[in-house]
Amino acid sequence: MSGAPIAFYFDFSSPYGYLASERIDAIAAEFGREVLWRPVLLGVIFKTTGQSPLVSQNLRGPYHQRDMERSARKHGIKFALPDPFPFASIYACRIFYWLEARDPAAAKAYAHAVYRAAFTRNRSVSEAVDAIAVAVECGHDEAAVKAGMQEAAVKDRLRDETQAAMHKGVFGSPFVIVDGEPFWGNDRLGELREWLQTGGW
Amino acid sequence: MSGAPIAFYFDFSSPYGYLASERIDAIAAEFGREVLWRPVLLGVIFKTTGQSPLVSQNLRGPYHQRDMERSARKHGIKFALPDPFPFASIYACRIFYWLEARDPAAAKAYAHAVYRAAFTRNRSVSEAVDAIAVAVECGHDEAAVKAGMQEAAVKDRLRDETQAAMHKGVFGSPFVIVDGEPFWGNDRLGELREWLQTGGW
Repeated sequence: MSGAPIAFYFDFSSPYGYLASERIDAIAAEFGREVLWRPVLLGVIFKTTGQSPLVSQNLRGPYHQRDMERSARKHGIKFALPDPFPFASIYACRIFYWLEARDPAAAKAYAHAVYRAAFTRNRSVSEAVDAIAVAVECGHDEAAVKAGMQEAAVKDRLRDETQAAMHKGVFGSPFVIVDGEPFWGNDRLGELREWLQTGGW
Repeated sequence: MSGAPIAFYFDFSSPYGYLASERIDAIAAEFGREVLWRPVLLGVIFKTTGQSPLVSQNLRGPYHQRDMERSARKHGIKFALPDPFPFASIYACRIFYWLEARDPAAAKAYAHAVYRAAFTRNRSVSEAVDAIAVAVECGHDEAAVKAGMQEAAVKDRLRDETQAAMHKGVFGSPFVIVDGEPFWGNDRLGELREWLQTGGW
């Protein structure tokens, strides 16, 4: 059983996106599916939906901080909410797309490295220098990454991917689309798995 | 295995609250637990959290309409989003608490009847006359219900319950608290069941 790749939309500053990033490939692999990772700028999307980041909201914030930790424990994923939070993710996104045009596997490895730096080691990944440092640790050339992330084509690519995601209905992170069926939230990965297993309902 | 009652907070105008109402008692019963039903006015809580009803939000609205139907299908629950939506639920809430002070089982039966009228038969339950009609169909005396729902003590009770819910962190519907542990959303009932089964993680 196999099929089209699963689209995995996320923001690097999203804790639930991080939690999903640690499980999505294994779930897809069970059903012979590839995962197309698509970092986007949720802040741009929030301007359309009128949302604000979860943890800055009354009542919702404390619940979600607790829930993030509980969700991480449930799946045995190391997790600590970074400080400051939320943080800028534009440079990591640009580096991701620059890498992806050259080597999709390297881009995915870089995404894992960014997420783990931010959500397990409280390391800043928000400034350009931080985002580059993670790429260098992944084995990439500092000067090449620095030049690459400033290319107009890379900036356009990120803008286009964010717009394309919004056109597909993406309004949060993580957001997964499989065969046209959308699933929002890390807590829907179990349901996504059932969908892949049963073909839907 | 048994323990303290599970608190089930919901708004009568909440589709996900309706979906949860059809499953929560059975889940609790598996573990020898009672469920304390607590209708609240989410509109009052939204003033504190700055949220707006889901289906009126860009991008989020269409997703959630689709997801409500998908979630209902998954669990074999009859569902149709009422029109207009969302609707006022204050009269149904007042009748619930008036009934509950006399007979908790009758209050729960009334809550089921209100939810099913709204979410399976597109019947209005928002005006006082509508909310009373459902109570009459449940076997209650029209004049007694009409007088009861206007009692100052009943109005105060609803206000107090909504405030108390907010103080416990309730910001959405459904919202379940078991042994101090909060679970928001119909999609967390599976996790709630695991929590009851394992004692938490």
